[in-house]
Amino acid sequence: MASSNRAQLAAECLGTGALVCTVVGSGIMAENLAGGNVAIALLGNTIPTGAILFVLITMLGPISGAHFNPAVTLVFTLRKELALSKAGAFVTAQILGGILGCWLANYMFELDVFQISEKLRTGPSQWVSEITATVGLVLTILVCLRSRPEAIPVAVGLYITAAYWFTSSTSFANPAVAIARIFSNTFAGIRPQDAMLFILCQIVGAVLALVVSRLLLEEDKDTVSDVI
Amino acid sequence: MASSNRAQLAAECLGTGALVCTVVGSGIMAENLAGGNVAIALLGNTIPTGAILFVLITMLGPISGAHFNPAVTLVFTLRKELALSKAGAFVTAQILGGILGCWLANYMFELDVFQISEKLRTGPSQWVSEITATVGLVLTILVCLRSRPEAIPVAVGLYITAAYWFTSSTSFANPAVAIARIFSNTFAGIRPQDAMLFILCQIVGAVLALVVSRLLLEEDKDTVSDVI
Amino acid sequence: MASSNRAQLAAECLGTGALVCTVVGSGIMAENLAGGNVAIALLGNTIPTGAILFVLITMLGPISGAHFNPAVTLVFTLRKELALSKAGAFVTAQILGGILGCWLANYMFELDVFQISEKLRTGPSQWVSEITATVGLVLTILVCLRSRPEAIPVAVGLYITAAYWFTSSTSFANPAVAIARIFSNTFAGIRPQDAMLFILCQIVGAVLALVVSRLLLEEDKDTVSDVI
Amino acid sequence: MASSNRAQLAAECLGTGALVCTVVGSGIMAENLAGGNVAIALLGNTIPTGAILFVLITMLGPISGAHFNPAVTLVFTLRKELALSKAGAFVTAQILGGILGCWLANYMFELDVFQISEKLRTGPSQWVSEITATVGLVLTILVCLRSRPEAIPVAVGLYITAAYWFTSSTSFANPAVAIARIFSNTFAGIRPQDAMLFILCQIVGAVLALVVSRLLLEEDKDTVSDVI
Repeated sequence: MASSNRAQLAAECLGTGALVCTVVGSGIMAENLAGGNVAIALLGNTIPTGAILFVLITMLGPISGAHFNPAVTLVFTLRKELALSKAGAFVTAQILGGILGCWLANYMFELDVFQISEKLRTGPSQWVSEITATVGLVLTILVCLRSRPEAIPVAVGLYITAAYWFTSSTSFANPAVAIARIFSNTFAGIRPQDAMLFILCQIVGAVLALVVSRLLLEEDKDTVSDVI
Repeated sequence: MASSNRAQLAAECLGTGALVCTVVGSGIMAENLAGGNVAIALLGNTIPTGAILFVLITMLGPISGAHFNPAVTLVFTLRKELALSKAGAFVTAQILGGILGCWLANYMFELDVFQISEKLRTGPSQWVSEITATVGLVLTILVCLRSRPEAIPVAVGLYITAAYWFTSSTSFANPAVAIARIFSNTFAGIRPQDAMLFILCQIVGAVLALVVSRLLLEEDKDTVSDVI
Repeated sequence: MASSNRAQLAAECLGTGALVCTVVGSGIMAENLAGGNVAIALLGNTIPTGAILFVLITMLGPISGAHFNPAVTLVFTLRKELALSKAGAFVTAQILGGILGCWLANYMFELDVFQISEKLRTGPSQWVSEITATVGLVLTILVCLRSRPEAIPVAVGLYITAAYWFTSSTSFANPAVAIARIFSNTFAGIRPQDAMLFILCQIVGAVLALVVSRLLLEEDKDTVSDVI
Repeated sequence: MASSNRAQLAAECLGTGALVCTVVGSGIMAENLAGGNVAIALLGNTIPTGAILFVLITMLGPISGAHFNPAVTLVFTLRKELALSKAGAFVTAQILGGILGCWLANYMFELDVFQISEKLRTGPSQWVSEITATVGLVLTILVCLRSRPEAIPVAVGLYITAAYWFTSSTSFANPAVAIARIFSNTFAGIRPQDAMLFILCQIVGAVLALVVSRLLLEEDKDTVSDVI
């Protein structure tokens, strides 16, 4: 990537912010309008999320790689394709952007900008959902990256479109998004204590995906990380 | 572009007309059929709008650049990629096309062709929504234009698909469309006085996007506008 | 096209049949399940129709050009890109395929295979809708054919997705499909006498689109038809 | 394909598992949330299924060919493009993966992991639906493979999107998926005895598609199977 550090961090911050703003904002809009039919609300949350993921990865991928997700940044760091210091900066930009995106959504829908979610999301089913969702997301990225990198924006957008529905947690699969959703007590929100366990599961899923990707892609140990 | 002025203006007029006809017509259809469930109506308004944007930009992009939007034309003029006189003609064609498209939709759905919307759309939340929506739209175009221009039709279609849901204004993000929607007192309509403020916010958003794009793309001042 | 006449006619027959089977079948399915909410039924009719159009044009385009539509065949004949005798065979295959596709849908949903629709679809608003819908469809094909032929399958699928909602007739835009829909007294059906007027409007729209395309593409008279 | 046998079988197992997990999981999610409106539930089942098919075929196609379907494996074996022993291993991996995917979905939605469906799906209409659905799926693959192989992931995803709605069986079109769905007594389930007849119809459809593809593609007998 020819972009400077500053442009890369701006891209990660802006991209994660726009992603969270879409997840939270469309959740509020959908819940407001769906008249209690939660399946319709989830459709109105899914379609915008899948759509914006394509847009953001397409436009910002050439600048920063379009991670927007500490779990993805972790995987590239373990694969030694990203220096630890840069990874730290990426994750900071992602978390910061995510929270700002959430506040913007709150403001646009006339809610208190500063709020903490009370939405309960816990239990083994949801934790296994988050592990599964993150395994799938990271595998999608790593496997497509090898043979069809140009398909990644569509693949990630459609993967999340599916994962919103095939997991009971609606697939957060992203620690920065999980943290940001703490700050919205709406459809897309999550209690702080539940977010922490979600993030743990996401990290487990990311590392698991790295292991599975080595089987599928038949990579030598030393071309990826030898940490695992 | 090898197309003549006449073909370019025809493309801008036709494209904006078809866009508005879709926005207004699908809004009427969706509201008529949705039985009061506004989330379903918004789905029935969103999907056709995103779809027609892809079609129109794909087909008319090679002729006129497929602006269909005075905010986009303004940005290219500020970037000195479009002469002021041509920009004026583009905007005129867009506004004219938009109004004709609205009247056609009114006619097709057996409403009075000439009507003025009484739909209230005002307040800081909606204004910030319009600024946000336009920043995102213009950034999508400018950033994709640099590295993935062939993705612009899909990216713009999916951006608007998302933005209909993540803003409280349902993302007009287009002064010609805002003016045209004045002429339909339906789901997609807007009161004249509210449209004026929306347009102001859209212009602010467009200029803001131009500034942000320079940070992301690290463009020199003199390759873009030195107006800002 | 290197394909034989026989393969081309098989493609036109099969393609139109699959298109009608999808339009009619998904209409029945959607109406059966939607519990009276017609907007949901129309979503369940729109998404499969747009999807199958992409599939059919992608797979059969290289064999026959994937017209599946006498209005499209008419336009290519007027442009002198198709011999009159071949056009006649194409239209026959399309109409035959369409009717068989309708009967198959009827059978799959346990309805009387042979039935005549009583669904009223008439009046100036609907006629203008059919003209508009066909102008748009034919323009999409002719203009994309010039500069982005590889985008035609997506463009046509998404155009019809939009047109189902922005016209009051739900955009038949296809004489073979209009004839076939006579044979299904369901959501997607149409009375025989109304189908005849729809077809007339579709022919008017197709010819109109040919004229507009010459303005947009700045084609010389003699490169297209001099009939008009 | 340069991938080893082990990687290919892993891909077939993982892909079919993810497909079934999406079909069953999104079916449960959609039914839980749809408040009795089955059309909305089917939308919430269709969109994720079409989306994940694109993702899985895109990412795993370069490794194993991305069959995920014994009917597809059968066709390639009849075309002598796959050895019988390898085909057996593929089908085993698909069935195993499918069942595991179903169990995972059951677990994620807090249902009994081990359960047998009591959902009745039988009768000539449904059998003709399964034959039709499989003919269409296999034709899509075989015909696209000839001239537009890069379009297969989108084409298959959108074909199934349409087929969920234009058949009365909601288009299983896949013996491994049919077997796996036996193990979920939910929206997407099927009784064991009904699954057996569905599979028979799917095999008939696959062979029929092979015959039709020879007409459309004008292939010599000896370039495909001479079994038929």
